[in-house]
Amino acid sequence: MPLKKKFLTALFLLFLSSVHAQKSQVWKEVQAGVWKTQIGNLRHISLLQAAGAKSLPEGLKSLPQTGFPLPKDEIKFKIIDKKIYLSFPLASDEQIFGLGLNFQTVNQRGRIMNLHVDHYGGKDNGRTHAPVPFYVSSRGYGVLIDASAYMTVYVGSNVRSDSKNRPPIQDRNTDKNWDSQPPSDALEVLIPADGASIYVFAGPSPMQAVQRYNLFNGGGYLPPKWGLGFTQRVPTLFSQDDIIKEAKSFEDHQFPLDFIGVEPGWHSASYPCTFEWDPTRFPRPKAFLDTLSRMGISANLWLNPYVSPKSSLFAPIKKYTGSHLVWNGIVPDFTLPQARKLMRDHFVKHHLDIGVGGYKIDEVDGYDFWIWPDVATFPSGTSAEQMRQIYGLMVQEMTASWFKEKNKRTYGLIRASNAGASHLPYVIYNDYYSHKDFITALVNSSFIGVLWTPEVRASKSAEEWVRRMQSVCFSPMAMLNAWADGTKPWTFPEVAQAVNDVANLRMQLLPYLYTTFAQYRFEGKPPFRSMNLVDGFAFKPKGEKGKVDATENPYGMSIKNDIKDQYMMGDFILVAPMFAGEKSREVYLPEGKWYDFYTGKLVGENQKIQITPSLDKIPLFVKDGAIIPMVPVHRQAPKDGQHYPLEVRHYGQKASTWKMYDDDGRTFDFEKGAYTWTELGVRRGENGQLEGRPKQVSPKANFGYMPEIQWSFMTK
Amino acid sequence: MPLKKKFLTALFLLFLSSVHAQKSQVWKEVQAGVWKTQIGNLRHISLLQAAGAKSLPEGLKSLPQTGFPLPKDEIKFKIIDKKIYLSFPLASDEQIFGLGLNFQTVNQRGRIMNLHVDHYGGKDNGRTHAPVPFYVSSRGYGVLIDASAYMTVYVGSNVRSDSKNRPPIQDRNTDKNWDSQPPSDALEVLIPADGASIYVFAGPSPMQAVQRYNLFNGGGYLPPKWGLGFTQRVPTLFSQDDIIKEAKSFEDHQFPLDFIGVEPGWHSASYPCTFEWDPTRFPRPKAFLDTLSRMGISANLWLNPYVSPKSSLFAPIKKYTGSHLVWNGIVPDFTLPQARKLMRDHFVKHHLDIGVGGYKIDEVDGYDFWIWPDVATFPSGTSAEQMRQIYGLMVQEMTASWFKEKNKRTYGLIRASNAGASHLPYVIYNDYYSHKDFITALVNSSFIGVLWTPEVRASKSAEEWVRRMQSVCFSPMAMLNAWADGTKPWTFPEVAQAVNDVANLRMQLLPYLYTTFAQYRFEGKPPFRSMNLVDGFAFKPKGEKGKVDATENPYGMSIKNDIKDQYMMGDFILVAPMFAGEKSREVYLPEGKWYDFYTGKLVGENQKIQITPSLDKIPLFVKDGAIIPMVPVHRQAPKDGQHYPLEVRHYGQKASTWKMYDDDGRTFDFEKGAYTWTELGVRRGENGQLEGRPKQVSPKANFGYMPEIQWSFMTK
Repeated sequence: MPLKKKFLTALFLLFLSSVHAQKSQVWKEVQAGVWKTQIGNLRHISLLQAAGAKSLPEGLKSLPQTGFPLPKDEIKFKIIDKKIYLSFPLASDEQIFGLGLNFQTVNQRGRIMNLHVDHYGGKDNGRTHAPVPFYVSSRGYGVLIDASAYMTVYVGSNVRSDSKNRPPIQDRNTDKNWDSQPPSDALEVLIPADGASIYVFAGPSPMQAVQRYNLFNGGGYLPPKWGLGFTQRVPTLFSQDDIIKEAKSFEDHQFPLDFIGVEPGWHSASYPCTFEWDPTRFPRPKAFLDTLSRMGISANLWLNPYVSPKSSLFAPIKKYTGSHLVWNGIVPDFTLPQARKLMRDHFVKHHLDIGVGGYKIDEVDGYDFWIWPDVATFPSGTSAEQMRQIYGLMVQEMTASWFKEKNKRTYGLIRASNAGASHLPYVIYNDYYSHKDFITALVNSSFIGVLWTPEVRASKSAEEWVRRMQSVCFSPMAMLNAWADGTKPWTFPEVAQAVNDVANLRMQLLPYLYTTFAQYRFEGKPPFRSMNLVDGFAFKPKGEKGKVDATENPYGMSIKNDIKDQYMMGDFILVAPMFAGEKSREVYLPEGKWYDFYTGKLVGENQKIQITPSLDKIPLFVKDGAIIPMVPVHRQAPKDGQHYPLEVRHYGQKASTWKMYDDDGRTFDFEKGAYTWTELGVRRGENGQLEGRPKQVSPKANFGYMPEIQWSFMTK
Repeated sequence: MPLKKKFLTALFLLFLSSVHAQKSQVWKEVQAGVWKTQIGNLRHISLLQAAGAKSLPEGLKSLPQTGFPLPKDEIKFKIIDKKIYLSFPLASDEQIFGLGLNFQTVNQRGRIMNLHVDHYGGKDNGRTHAPVPFYVSSRGYGVLIDASAYMTVYVGSNVRSDSKNRPPIQDRNTDKNWDSQPPSDALEVLIPADGASIYVFAGPSPMQAVQRYNLFNGGGYLPPKWGLGFTQRVPTLFSQDDIIKEAKSFEDHQFPLDFIGVEPGWHSASYPCTFEWDPTRFPRPKAFLDTLSRMGISANLWLNPYVSPKSSLFAPIKKYTGSHLVWNGIVPDFTLPQARKLMRDHFVKHHLDIGVGGYKIDEVDGYDFWIWPDVATFPSGTSAEQMRQIYGLMVQEMTASWFKEKNKRTYGLIRASNAGASHLPYVIYNDYYSHKDFITALVNSSFIGVLWTPEVRASKSAEEWVRRMQSVCFSPMAMLNAWADGTKPWTFPEVAQAVNDVANLRMQLLPYLYTTFAQYRFEGKPPFRSMNLVDGFAFKPKGEKGKVDATENPYGMSIKNDIKDQYMMGDFILVAPMFAGEKSREVYLPEGKWYDFYTGKLVGENQKIQITPSLDKIPLFVKDGAIIPMVPVHRQAPKDGQHYPLEVRHYGQKASTWKMYDDDGRTFDFEKGAYTWTELGVRRGENGQLEGRPKQVSPKANFGYMPEIQWSFMTK
């Protein structure tokens, strides 16, 4: 066949394969309540592959059996010119949650998201640290689009001309209710890639759809117990002696401290990084880590993965790096096993082998001015766009595997993540620093299988300080990040006691919090939860029509209300943080009776309440029948062989049972069955009094607690 | 050949054709000083095609002859996976201007632009009303990338690992001058399309590169004289009688008014639109237009091009529209001749045939929530992305052609434009309304062949009002847009006189301004010009290192300075607008002596001056040797047969000559030679006094002015 004819044949076949829409799509149930279909050719590494996600079938099977949760014939796919066009139906009352770590909005219905790994730039437009292409519907199902591309999701924002439910024609001249955004009955996605896997997750509740999503990706990561204690990050140029001194000052102040963050100065050069200890500031790194360890403290090392010419890693890894530099450092192509191996060997030798407990992995998100550009190329042939979407996942998965090799749990910080990350030991953080929006991010993290910390840096007032410290203690990582200015928990003396109190309260709640994370691991339930995932919470967002104004709002756009400043920690505790400058706030209580955590008093039921709390406490509300295991104040999580006395609180009037989890708190032996679930029950005794059972748990069933249980009935 | 083998062959050929880089690129000189190369396959309509751009070879030939202005071997191209990767060299001192209608920055060196037609969202990131993929270098050349795609331009923002001029490795730990954005020696572009034409324009000056760019696209549009008068837009629901009354009130106030803007209420239904007169508010549209015409006033009709089911156009045009609605209106596919023809016939019949003078074409830019989404499809097969990039161009070109059919010039408003638009009769506007940023947009419009008006709507104070009215009178369209609130020029009585004065001054400057637009038409010189296009202006932008702050600026990013609040109107007048709240300002004067426009007094030379002007005047400075033709105050531009007396001012001490343009001011007869250029000269007479020549121009050479010239020497 002459070359020209061959080329024409090629073009024709290309035309056939790319222009024609796929007529019907086969959905295969790949796990209980999880269906998959594949569109086009998967030539590239997917998000779930990059995350190394492996399902937990036993967890998935324990959820209710259910059928495919959407009308299949209303899901439409086509491929045009190497791009995938998707359309999913939306019911008129449906709310859509997820689609990335958003900071200002919860219900994404009506929005447009261009999912793109990036630092958060102040708008919920899809550019964020974890632009996860997963959404969960208020109607109780979830959808994941597994493709590492900058896809755009139109969440019922634009109306199709063939829509079955076309909104009425309005005349802006005369119709006062004219709407600049007529409602659409389709969620549409444009994926600039010629292949993607789509997953649909059954509920039947939104929470169960999220659980399936997390369990499909391996469940949540179970942090080491020390990971749930307090952590402080030290100023950049602190030496090993400065850090030991810093740790001692926490002892002096009787302030909790389980791990300490070591900032860029530990590198012999950083930005770009050597990943080698600086000989002047850290002359004896092993001795330094050993000293910390004797103080019960784990060390977490800051890094970004861009390699300095001054590192011994530079020469061998150079050929496995991309076409562009980040701060003049080379960018390893971690889709290549050779690059991963070189990185592993360097890190294990210099860090893990001498006792480093974890990493803070910075600047893998963006922003565009310093990360590799989309015109970059990589030796594996992976495009820059795709590399951007998966880099954070790959560094999480890779570093996690090194600790797993040592049968040692880690817990660290990451700036970029994506789908499939729930099983990875990292908490997302950033520099954005709006306290209120930080809480909204915590709410949103619950939909998409990631963790988020509203970290504390500096504050303009004692009020801001205590309010920030309170909420960070009710988050996945209780962190003070003092890299730039050396703030301490006691920096504002007038609130130092209140700050110490809330850190102590977090330490007391460790058995409850650890169980909450075990629920994440075994049941897929996010530890910190949006109200929209709570049974019996049926808040309907209201759109309020905006006033037309020639200069401020020429289209009279409406403003949407969300519940975005309160959340659940685990099954029972509703957290309603306070923000500087606000003396009172509203709290929405779901169905059932709710009690004040501190006093046990009834506060309301299925209603909106107004509270005016004091400065020294974060408002916490507890569900009727709540069972909350606690320990006395300790500065650190229990170590091997340590046992803390157990107090179990009960709130309200309801008889109830709840299972408390425990294990060794530091290894992966739990994966081989070395763990316990203790059923804690409260029933009404013969005299009508509430009674707790058991009074004592089998010593064998207990890793970190004494066998005796002290039951406290908080509601009199 | 079995199908499988055929498919593999196809894939292999596809691989060959898509992955391999093109080794060398042929540059063809397509016009004097304009070179073109083509990359990949041009399957789609290009920007210049959509704009209907046709070169003016005679204008191009009159510019200095020059060679290809860049080192060809340092321009690199490749195509990977259907995307084009471009790299152009940058010298270390080079400044880059253009790349869209930016509102906050002028020199784009170091920035990243994703060129995407959109409303302006508050950041110079490429999403703007005219994301023109053209840049001009301070080294005196220009580059146009003619592709209708959302391309990303890295303007020396990211460093390649194979760079010849790699910035030094720094250590942020210890180096105080560590820079979060190390300088790059490459401008790189990622074009998500498999075909593009690239043009390089010679200078040798930046202004000449811009001139070539504009002349290559047909030169600038020469507005009708009435287009340079004052215009008021009326409240949305005004009836024809209300509008006549409004026009009369301008007569009563002796305020200039050449055309009037009729807002959505003229449609029988709008949003979506019918393009048919509302019978209650406009019972006799022809009589209404005739009455206005008798008052010397042209009517400009607002519209957006989304068709209402209530329009008689709906049924015939339906099959030529896209898959998605905009405000429930159908979206015509104007790449189809059938759609254009239907639109033309409807518009000519209902508007042009009865005397409508122009259009304001709204909402063809975005934003995403109401324009068609990127998942939309169109019957021509043009992608939604491409349609977004060219829609504004197409509606400009299409409507312009209808007026041209009638040999009648028009002048209107548009919200979206792109490359190749200089020859189109439209001025860009938006809702953003920052006065300062509006001026920066005016500065930036000069690089990219578009016009921009810093329109006035409302103001919070008399000071703001007069300052805004002053600067809009020194812009391509002197417009008060009162659609929402019915403001009038005399709304603030305390500054009513000052506002009238500046509108009168604009009318007096008509001969100068009209010539300035003729320079745009014949020589490609933008009428309103950035200082960076002025010979003898060599401002070096300084980057000031920012202070590291944990919460406000964690990377210590630097702040760049630009000259973005002053500009040239034509060859001689430097405009330095004042902004509300600022009593004094800096003005940068280029080389040569500069004089106060009002007094003729010397103010400085090649220096930065501080001025503290009064509220009643906009600061204007004039170049040594300036020749400025003016007329007495008139409310309107001269009509056919009207002749105004001519005063020609001279500033400074220099003998000089300058050519004044004139023609009939309303038809295209000038394209057949019906125009004049009158050389106005000032020389030193025998007694050392300055003398103006001629004293009188041939009556034949004058369309709108009396033959006598009154020479005024402003500098004593």
